[in-house]
Amino acid sequence: MKTLNTDIAIIGAGTAGLSAYGVAKQATSNIILINEGYYGTTCARVGCMPSKVFIQVANDYHRRLHLEKQGIYGGDRITIRTDEMLRHVRAMRDYFVDFVLETVEEIGSNNIHGKARFLAPDTLQVDGQVIQAGKIILATGSTPFIPEPLKSIRLNNPGSVLTTDELFELENLPDSIAVIGTGPIGLELGQALHRMGTATHIFGRSRKVGGLTDSDVIEYAIEVFRNELSLDFAPKLSYAAHENGVTISWQDEGEQKHIQVESVMAATGRRPNIQDLGLEEIGVPCDKKGVPEFNPTTMQIANFPIFIAGDVTNIQPVLHEASDEGKIAGWNCTHDIAAFRRRTPLAITFSESNIVRLGKSRSELTDGTYEIGEALFDTQGRATIQQHNKGMLHLYGDKKNGLILGAEMIAPAGEHFGHLLSWAIESKMTVFDALAAPVYHPVLEEGLRTGLRDLAQKIDPNRQGLELFYQNPS
Amino acid sequence: MKTLNTDIAIIGAGTAGLSAYGVAKQATSNIILINEGYYGTTCARVGCMPSKVFIQVANDYHRRLHLEKQGIYGGDRITIRTDEMLRHVRAMRDYFVDFVLETVEEIGSNNIHGKARFLAPDTLQVDGQVIQAGKIILATGSTPFIPEPLKSIRLNNPGSVLTTDELFELENLPDSIAVIGTGPIGLELGQALHRMGTATHIFGRSRKVGGLTDSDVIEYAIEVFRNELSLDFAPKLSYAAHENGVTISWQDEGEQKHIQVESVMAATGRRPNIQDLGLEEIGVPCDKKGVPEFNPTTMQIANFPIFIAGDVTNIQPVLHEASDEGKIAGWNCTHDIAAFRRRTPLAITFSESNIVRLGKSRSELTDGTYEIGEALFDTQGRATIQQHNKGMLHLYGDKKNGLILGAEMIAPAGEHFGHLLSWAIESKMTVFDALAAPVYHPVLEEGLRTGLRDLAQKIDPNRQGLELFYQNPS
Repeated sequence: MKTLNTDIAIIGAGTAGLSAYGVAKQATSNIILINEGYYGTTCARVGCMPSKVFIQVANDYHRRLHLEKQGIYGGDRITIRTDEMLRHVRAMRDYFVDFVLETVEEIGSNNIHGKARFLAPDTLQVDGQVIQAGKIILATGSTPFIPEPLKSIRLNNPGSVLTTDELFELENLPDSIAVIGTGPIGLELGQALHRMGTATHIFGRSRKVGGLTDSDVIEYAIEVFRNELSLDFAPKLSYAAHENGVTISWQDEGEQKHIQVESVMAATGRRPNIQDLGLEEIGVPCDKKGVPEFNPTTMQIANFPIFIAGDVTNIQPVLHEASDEGKIAGWNCTHDIAAFRRRTPLAITFSESNIVRLGKSRSELTDGTYEIGEALFDTQGRATIQQHNKGMLHLYGDKKNGLILGAEMIAPAGEHFGHLLSWAIESKMTVFDALAAPVYHPVLEEGLRTGLRDLAQKIDPNRQGLELFYQNPS
Repeated sequence: MKTLNTDIAIIGAGTAGLSAYGVAKQATSNIILINEGYYGTTCARVGCMPSKVFIQVANDYHRRLHLEKQGIYGGDRITIRTDEMLRHVRAMRDYFVDFVLETVEEIGSNNIHGKARFLAPDTLQVDGQVIQAGKIILATGSTPFIPEPLKSIRLNNPGSVLTTDELFELENLPDSIAVIGTGPIGLELGQALHRMGTATHIFGRSRKVGGLTDSDVIEYAIEVFRNELSLDFAPKLSYAAHENGVTISWQDEGEQKHIQVESVMAATGRRPNIQDLGLEEIGVPCDKKGVPEFNPTTMQIANFPIFIAGDVTNIQPVLHEASDEGKIAGWNCTHDIAAFRRRTPLAITFSESNIVRLGKSRSELTDGTYEIGEALFDTQGRATIQQHNKGMLHLYGDKKNGLILGAEMIAPAGEHFGHLLSWAIESKMTVFDALAAPVYHPVLEEGLRTGLRDLAQKIDPNRQGLELFYQNPS
């Protein structure tokens, strides 16, 4: 075997790997990028981008139901060609993937295609080649998880069990589908499928939706989805293959229920790609799921010359964090190791209404140390005008000083509120500071302000003066 | 004449007057609210609220043009019944006005209907009644301005010249309209009229749109509107009444042009209601437009026991400022006079794309002290998915330290960016702080981040490290 020497070997050409490359190349051109399977990032190829196109079409189609009230006629004659819709999704996906492929092409001969395996902390084997690297970055991403019973059905009838990686590859949508999982992807795609005419039944294991931890917001959100489609929670589902698809059975308050669907989509999360990397053999400490232990401010694995980045970390699988992690890893491979401050957490489910978590989740807060400001959007002015007024916001503030700590919500324009509030946390704004900041009229942010006012009132019920006063009494 | 004694007399029961009342009543119940004409605020009755309903319908109807590309058919058979649309607008308006009227009703017998005139700094005459007040708050609002030549046409043919106060009262929309004015209201309503099928021609006096001062953003915005409708700039328009409406003539690069329209809508601004108040007779110092001089941090007029609030101030006629001014006036009528810090300026035109100004306008900045970060939305990912990707952002940052100073833009989701950036200014964020705050994917805020990155690069081209690094190098 011939040995290739390099300063840095990056395993994985997804978002994290390419970000790492982008930073590291500023210090050295001696980098090797090793990739197995497709190029083009999970985000652009099967994740964020095609799903947003899919959701956009679904919501545009759904809007027909809100037209007549406004004097607009013909909404009932609007139809969707879901085969064309899927071609549109793929065309847009290809457009976005092409940007990624261009980046990969620029890397040129530093690309190696194949499966990497550690021989030593500084040595990899890729097919017949040995690579010795000063530093190695592990950015192998993740793969959709399919529960065991579905795996065996899928073996016999591949079309009847889908993963989210495959949905956009379909020629056409199934007539009926069971979506397994009430995380962001299950809710986003389940709602969109329903809106485009597929009879959709979403199943969750426990009463959780979109990663929320606040039970009041969870219950409100469940109602929002149940007003539109079928959503059930059952700790255990049984699956049986039948001629035209799958029968799903579950217990509902002691009653046995079942439905037949053409397809089942497993939206049951993704698992890090860590199998067969040989990590344990070289002495890397791993958790019980096999994921290496690492420092999230440096991305280094213990004291090894190995760094980790992106979905393979098995933490929050979101693009902006994967990109940060790649940059940190790329920096720390080419400089003295530095610890970086990570961003305020922000997670968005692009359902309608959006589900958003930011800062501290309610489950991360200690009872008695915080107050909750609540806002409902049901009668909010602009939301009412938009006929899109389903929403509940819970805003958490420090009981002592009013510092904004976090929020959970399902809300119209939630994706924008997520940015506004997480930036407010970055700036260490108190609820009183936020109330002295501008809120225009008539905007959805006035609903958010209702939550701020409720929180301020709970933190300091005796506070005197105008909201303007708070920041600058004179 | 009998004399009524009161602690506070508030002239005007609009947004500012009612806000003032709300604050003052916490200290005294001895308040008289004097109102002439309709109750129900300019905002709810003829302004923000009905216009947003009107715009919402227009945009929902317009969306039909973007459906087929996504595999959705029948958009071409969608029709609008503009008479029903207008009834919907009025029904929604009444719903919002009712909230205001409830507030007014609660005030009960403290309401006086009539026209107030100052007899002395602490004395008013309202029809046959003399009111002596400890403090007086002037919150008389504003009235649409109609240029002289249109006034005379209107006298002979009332239907042919509309103000924005009258548009929503129409039985149906005209077939053709000329909208005079390219301020926020002219653009919002002009675009909505066009989208709902009225042949619309918008005229501006000079090359200004939506209150923007940045010529690059202005030119981009003009292009956006011109791609959709007729927009011309002429320092002078001539009007001639004809049988079926009005003929408008103007010079365009030496060429004489004219159009015939069924109606003309004057969106030429509003004028403060200060006539016949007797302000000058009691010695109040007024500017050349007759508006009293006042301190914007206390809302007091010179050293008189008179305060001013809302659109009558003839500054930015926006609801959230009118509300603040009312509160400040109400507070200062019932406490030792305090100076209040005003909010970061924020102004939004709800056209599609939104036009937004916040913080310092470009015209308020001194050459050489600032850098401009630019972003275009034409190829931005989420904006492309939404088929709503017309946008240019100019972000102004302090050359020395990167402090965010202000922004002007026409952008998708501009109303949300306006809040995000004005709150960032409230928090004294630098461009480097903002780049260390979370931006999710795929969101429109990524377009805004492009502007931040451009600005950061111009302010400190040699800055090393990751964006995360900026805030916390270690």
